[in-house]
Amino acid sequence: MNKLILAAAILASPALAADEAPAPPTPASVVEAAKPSEWKAIDPADLLVMDLAPDAKGNKRQVIIQLMPPPFSQGWVDNIRTLARAHWWDGTSVYRAVDNWVVQWGDGEGEDPAKAKPLPKGLKVVPESEYVAPATKAELTNLADGASFGASGLAKTTSFLSDPYASLTTFYEGWPIATSSNAKWPTHCYGTVGVARDLSPDTGTGAELYSVIGQAPRQLDRNIAVVGRVIEGIENLSTLPRGKGDHGVYADKSLRVPIISVRLGSDLPTAEQPHFEYLDTGSKSFAEYVHVSANRNDAFYKVPAGGIALCNVKVPIRRVPGE
Amino acid sequence: MNKLILAAAILASPALAADEAPAPPTPASVVEAAKPSEWKAIDPADLLVMDLAPDAKGNKRQVIIQLMPPPFSQGWVDNIRTLARAHWWDGTSVYRAVDNWVVQWGDGEGEDPAKAKPLPKGLKVVPESEYVAPATKAELTNLADGASFGASGLAKTTSFLSDPYASLTTFYEGWPIATSSNAKWPTHCYGTVGVARDLSPDTGTGAELYSVIGQAPRQLDRNIAVVGRVIEGIENLSTLPRGKGDHGVYADKSLRVPIISVRLGSDLPTAEQPHFEYLDTGSKSFAEYVHVSANRNDAFYKVPAGGIALCNVKVPIRRVPGE
Repeated sequence: MNKLILAAAILASPALAADEAPAPPTPASVVEAAKPSEWKAIDPADLLVMDLAPDAKGNKRQVIIQLMPPPFSQGWVDNIRTLARAHWWDGTSVYRAVDNWVVQWGDGEGEDPAKAKPLPKGLKVVPESEYVAPATKAELTNLADGASFGASGLAKTTSFLSDPYASLTTFYEGWPIATSSNAKWPTHCYGTVGVARDLSPDTGTGAELYSVIGQAPRQLDRNIAVVGRVIEGIENLSTLPRGKGDHGVYADKSLRVPIISVRLGSDLPTAEQPHFEYLDTGSKSFAEYVHVSANRNDAFYKVPAGGIALCNVKVPIRRVPGE
Repeated sequence: MNKLILAAAILASPALAADEAPAPPTPASVVEAAKPSEWKAIDPADLLVMDLAPDAKGNKRQVIIQLMPPPFSQGWVDNIRTLARAHWWDGTSVYRAVDNWVVQWGDGEGEDPAKAKPLPKGLKVVPESEYVAPATKAELTNLADGASFGASGLAKTTSFLSDPYASLTTFYEGWPIATSSNAKWPTHCYGTVGVARDLSPDTGTGAELYSVIGQAPRQLDRNIAVVGRVIEGIENLSTLPRGKGDHGVYADKSLRVPIISVRLGSDLPTAEQPHFEYLDTGSKSFAEYVHVSANRNDAFYKVPAGGIALCNVKVPIRRVPGE
């Protein structure tokens, strides 16, 4: 038996179940057992496909981002669609990387307004009030069982999702969401994409974006626009060298990674359009997935945690063939 | 005004305070104002200095790990001291990297016992009971103010440190700690170093180690030995290419990063011994630091979070000159 690789295996993934007894469920086994009807398609029109320059060995580097659905952040999401359709990001770069924080991309020439790349027409100025969306009482219904998220919309969870940043946390159409008594908002988890901005009242246009590459910086929630998440290729951002200039900007501009193109998935030729599905966060399988993730008692785990942080619930997303 | 870099700056660091009014405190300003007496030296005997092979451009790569203090995980820590003194890691490698999970190093030849590197004599077999330490009632005293952590030992925090993985969370001699009614244990945060192992009752020797490079995998707490944390050079692990073999092991062995040497800081020549200090987690400044970190209201933040996750409290640690 391979001790080291087994140790590695178990750290990385569901237990390799012994075959003598019915194995306890793992998050992966719950996902595998989900019904086809519990998976929901992600519209290619809601995807951004970012092609970076190949790495030093010539390997292709692609990052795919899912855009935030209504009612969240739609002003910035509209701007991002405008920027993508204008091919505005083509020729810009990834210019900043800070360990356990963010990788940032866009023009990156703000130091010198004369050098700044002109923005396309039609971008909205989005007010700070759009960092959150109103929440109704019905959406905040307190369900007795934290493993139930309700077939649609928001629902209170039990203490196993207790959170220092919000009254309640839950999932909404596939996204981790936090709530207070009258508002709901999208949260900063690993892979979350947000809009870099200047000081208030500036809210950013969406031209300069960042992705989280470390511990969830939830203190940014409600202070900055969350517009999406990386669903494939995050390693093409998270492994970039950390910048040594001020605030992690690459002092050595040769480290900037050229962005070849950013396109909406639906604007690519049909054969190239990426297709993904997410596990319906209102489904029975998702509720079970959260419950099992919070109470691991499979082969590797001796002490179930009894709870789970919102950002440790990795919403299952899978690539599927096109039609 | 530099819009982009300001946006970058603020994301990365305390606000660049306007000078018209007294600026609200930031985590960084609190740390800067701490008294010299609030900083505590880290003994070089409690540091592991790991030198990796230089990168493709010839840059030096060093990782410095602080070992866990008593009463936590001391059986494995003793083994690690034995392994370092035997120079056992010299010639081994970093052989596994999984995005948003861990980087792992050591022998990595467990697939083939005939190839496995023999371990030094004198390693202990540590029981699973050592994943936690007993906690007394006095250590679990419920302080009224969550911003106070007590001058020594553990103390309950208010809901602003509420945690789905433990009854209480706090800090103990510089480390983030979780507790239940009769036990306390070290936690998995970004940069935490733990001991890879096989299935229970194996607990690992300490020869195969990993460091967390993503969202805190707190479900591993109490299930695996936490033996330290990376305090410098984490980027030399977190930026490594992710492995494409099973469970993130490098299928292409040429991607393994050779480990040149691992030494206890105190075993290096005096002039090369690294010196660090941490902000006393029982100090007034640390309590203020947690409070301000949880309630950012400086220039960039419009909505203070009102709370903070245990693993988002980055214990201030600084390199200092030798004597």
